[in-house]
Amino acid sequence: MSSSNKLAKAPSKPISQSLRLPRGPVSMADLDPSATPGYPGKGKADAAALTEALGPQVSDLQEMLYASGRSNPESAQRVLVVLQGMDTSGKGGVIRHAMGLVDPQGIDLTAFKAPTEEERKHDYLWRIRNALPGAGKIGIFDRSHYEDVLVVRVESIVPEDVWSKRYDEINAFEAELAAGGTRIVKCMLNVSSDEQKARLAERLEDPTKYWKYNPGDVDARKKWPAYMEAYEALLEKCNTDAAPWYVIPADRKWYRNWAVAELLRETLAGMPLSWPAAEFDVEVEKARVAAS
Amino acid sequence: MSSSNKLAKAPSKPISQSLRLPRGPVSMADLDPSATPGYPGKGKADAAALTEALGPQVSDLQEMLYASGRSNPESAQRVLVVLQGMDTSGKGGVIRHAMGLVDPQGIDLTAFKAPTEEERKHDYLWRIRNALPGAGKIGIFDRSHYEDVLVVRVESIVPEDVWSKRYDEINAFEAELAAGGTRIVKCMLNVSSDEQKARLAERLEDPTKYWKYNPGDVDARKKWPAYMEAYEALLEKCNTDAAPWYVIPADRKWYRNWAVAELLRETLAGMPLSWPAAEFDVEVEKARVAAS
Repeated sequence: MSSSNKLAKAPSKPISQSLRLPRGPVSMADLDPSATPGYPGKGKADAAALTEALGPQVSDLQEMLYASGRSNPESAQRVLVVLQGMDTSGKGGVIRHAMGLVDPQGIDLTAFKAPTEEERKHDYLWRIRNALPGAGKIGIFDRSHYEDVLVVRVESIVPEDVWSKRYDEINAFEAELAAGGTRIVKCMLNVSSDEQKARLAERLEDPTKYWKYNPGDVDARKKWPAYMEAYEALLEKCNTDAAPWYVIPADRKWYRNWAVAELLRETLAGMPLSWPAAEFDVEVEKARVAAS
Repeated sequence: MSSSNKLAKAPSKPISQSLRLPRGPVSMADLDPSATPGYPGKGKADAAALTEALGPQVSDLQEMLYASGRSNPESAQRVLVVLQGMDTSGKGGVIRHAMGLVDPQGIDLTAFKAPTEEERKHDYLWRIRNALPGAGKIGIFDRSHYEDVLVVRVESIVPEDVWSKRYDEINAFEAELAAGGTRIVKCMLNVSSDEQKARLAERLEDPTKYWKYNPGDVDARKKWPAYMEAYEALLEKCNTDAAPWYVIPADRKWYRNWAVAELLRETLAGMPLSWPAAEFDVEVEKARVAAS
């Protein structure tokens, strides 16, 4: 569409700065789920167009990332987007609308459920390591190893002396990934308790949304304060320079989708990407093609 | 965009009828790679918009397919899109532009390369079975088991008495999948030898495309007649009602992308999809949410 370039406005400062959680103690009560930091448009009306307008640049950068992965699999860069948030916060919506801007060939998507019997036989990071993005790929984790300090902590699935060590283990794991060339973008989709209630009620009003409703969501909802405490702990303890946390206000779906798309665009734009050199003699190959 | 509905024109007859290969002997020489059967627009100028205009319907249907897969994993329907074609025919372009219309969560994409050591220890269909789409998913095969009667036949990687039995084996395998609820859409992207030559030359003129060029492509190109013979055999022998072959003219990229997107839309629209019923008492849950 000819309007795309006009619409591809950049925020006045990098979105990573607007959304980056400051180091130190975190209080969820201080983080506004309905804010729209860095949003360069007018509001809901232009958000879908602004998000779609990011598509061409995201797509071009992703192709360069993919190309470099193909030509040099060992040292290749990768991106890992980690999506966490309470039920209804919109992890699926972000994947559909923001990650949907990317060529499916460039994505390694994993949705982590309750661990299987096989997964439970291993360390909690085993299945995470198995799902890491390949060379030149953008990995997307719909839930992640952070569930091992969220539901696992709230429901006491392992004793405190086990889960309390995991923050340091996770930091060491993520530092290792970052050192190996993976850009880690951790997004906490911050939905309010009131908005969650409205979204759950909406699913029960609409037969085309029944499949998204799970009675267990209400049980988790009843433990909201314990979950917020668990989020505060992980946001404080695992907010490192190698793998920073971004808190995305998620009460406005249109803002949430735009913000994650812009964060992905900015991440890709900040990587030292270049087109791989030819691994063959270009003139020789031109002659071979011409003669074929 | 408000223009989408206006642009979402349907072809005058189902695209599956325009592209379905008739039963019987096949001559590649009779199939025009630059034709545009069933295209409802003016040409290249409106093709990207016509393709994008399919997005909302494809997306809605895919969500219903996905929902039914979530609620009934055992009996769920699935779709399997098989993409075959000579180098440069545009398998990657189709995935980017046509399959890119679909929510990444709904896709199971596999690109088959030369078999690994592990894969070679098993029957040729072993890795194919491992990559079949999950419940409610759209599987995409970038190359497939048809390589086992293409490169394997042309390069005599196994003896003729082995590969010649595979056509029947493949038909039996695909009939089994179809009976189990998988809609199989096999697309042969038909690029001409001249157009392939032009595309290879183009890659050598543009440093941002060097990574797509492989000197081995010229070696395969020199065996063009043998590949066409192998395609004729599989198009004739494996063109079944359970798993029909569609030959997509692929010299015009804009037509190719639109045609596969429309074929996917039509396939989804022809499936008996419905939103799953609630597996809980809706009124009880409304009260639980209200009280939470």
